[in-house]
Amino acid sequence: MDATELQQLVAAIGEEILARVETGRAAAPCDCSMSHGPAPSASPRGEGLNIPGLVCPGCVQRCAQTCARKTREIIAAGADRISASERLTRVDPATAGLIDHTLLKPEATADDIRKLCREARQYGFATVCVNPYWVPLAAAELSGSPVKVCTVAGFPLGATPTAIKRAEAEAAARAGAQEVDMVINVGALRSGDLETVYQDIQAVADACHRAGVIVKVILETALLDDNQKAIACALARMGGADFVKTSTGFGPSGATARDVALMRLAVGSDMGVKAAGGIRSLEDLQRMVAAGATRIGASASVRIVEAAAA
Amino acid sequence: MDATELQQLVAAIGEEILARVETGRAAAPCDCSMSHGPAPSASPRGEGLNIPGLVCPGCVQRCAQTCARKTREIIAAGADRISASERLTRVDPATAGLIDHTLLKPEATADDIRKLCREARQYGFATVCVNPYWVPLAAAELSGSPVKVCTVAGFPLGATPTAIKRAEAEAAARAGAQEVDMVINVGALRSGDLETVYQDIQAVADACHRAGVIVKVILETALLDDNQKAIACALARMGGADFVKTSTGFGPSGATARDVALMRLAVGSDMGVKAAGGIRSLEDLQRMVAAGATRIGASASVRIVEAAAA
Repeated sequence: MDATELQQLVAAIGEEILARVETGRAAAPCDCSMSHGPAPSASPRGEGLNIPGLVCPGCVQRCAQTCARKTREIIAAGADRISASERLTRVDPATAGLIDHTLLKPEATADDIRKLCREARQYGFATVCVNPYWVPLAAAELSGSPVKVCTVAGFPLGATPTAIKRAEAEAAARAGAQEVDMVINVGALRSGDLETVYQDIQAVADACHRAGVIVKVILETALLDDNQKAIACALARMGGADFVKTSTGFGPSGATARDVALMRLAVGSDMGVKAAGGIRSLEDLQRMVAAGATRIGASASVRIVEAAAA
Repeated sequence: MDATELQQLVAAIGEEILARVETGRAAAPCDCSMSHGPAPSASPRGEGLNIPGLVCPGCVQRCAQTCARKTREIIAAGADRISASERLTRVDPATAGLIDHTLLKPEATADDIRKLCREARQYGFATVCVNPYWVPLAAAELSGSPVKVCTVAGFPLGATPTAIKRAEAEAAARAGAQEVDMVINVGALRSGDLETVYQDIQAVADACHRAGVIVKVILETALLDDNQKAIACALARMGGADFVKTSTGFGPSGATARDVALMRLAVGSDMGVKAAGGIRSLEDLQRMVAAGATRIGASASVRIVEAAAA
């Protein structure tokens, strides 16, 4: 699919969804690729979004509520780092390997970043997630270790131009980052300007992939309704992102299991889903993994893995 | 003073201050250029920072507490847009002309930005302050009006590389911004890396001034101690900034009259001081102006000017 076709699809998604949101008219039958098993007691009609290949939020909600067994199977298929939450309490390295050990507070000092890196080495976290200025220091501290350096772009507001987000991703890669978590243009999405949202994602994903860097797309779910979350997931997938991610940790609230389930079903099993924001305990982490998360962003990572080890 | 001399001065400031902060040893007599009038009951010794031309925080605090008359005179000399808070309740245009009418929430839509611009035209605010993505829209909406477009760089965390902050400022100027509020690298300042803080400011100020754009330097005072606030003011002045500004509005707390007074005294009367964050009423605005603010960042701007008119 070339860029023109992608943009046409983006526009079609926007028109379709916005028309239904605005007019409230009954939607066409859900086209989502997911098998519902026995039909839910209420039909998906009237709530399906009819986006080719994209499961509709109505189905997500219905399945989350009524198709628990099926949902668990999908979650199991989508959880590519650990297959069942029951394992978590026994497999500490697997728990640690799910976590982006995160310190994005603006007041963090060089000593705080060094401590974060020491902890990440010690516990075997997937990455440290730090602000762009600290990438060179974190890369140096983690040199020779399997722990990767993750940073952010357009963070946390997402309201910078595409060219700046791309430049941030390129600079991060040059500085030693191996993963970049970018924030979508929330205001553009809420204004119906899906093309800007797509272009942001596509530009950052392109810059990242040219440098061998993984890109995660932060939705900031607390600022979106279900339709907008589903659209953002579709755009992230079409834009070539590797992960979708719930939250910045700076928004009005963080990850919820419901949003993670919606996002997992929306992107399918071949993309990652990162839950972040407000995950402070092993139980929080387990809830997110059970809902479909394959990566966890947390500051309380040491407490979480020590709880898992205990 | 060339770049090398400036950097030497920056380093000297850092060494001087950090040595005193770390060791707690008695400081040299205060070299600040301000006349204290009758010496305060306690000498500035032991608290002065000895930065050439920069009033020391110890003196700021002492004067704020004990030299009320003198402080008021200085404030009056430094308030270049309005000379006394008593005028505010009678002069609505002057009140409006102090205000950057601000909407930096990531969820703001195109319609929200248009409304902000309509209000700014109607009430005669100094600027609208919007996220970078919205600068072209705001510039178009305000075309032909005296209201300027203000935007932000490195916002709100300040933890991006210098080159990115500079690129943001250049992009903002090209897009139609006439003022740029940049965030200092708070983490670098707190780590004692004053050169990074200075380079950020200098690079953004240079980019802005080449394009005829005013630059304000946001300290995020809630994350700094008094020494760090004074250093940041000195670096902003040396870096060529036009204003210092208290807060992003996204930090743990916003502007205080005490911080505004400290910043006014630290930068002298030839720079602007912008108070922002938590200014929700005419009384809040008056307190900030009385403390030395010459610009106010507010979202509740309409309520404030309507209160002033009443």
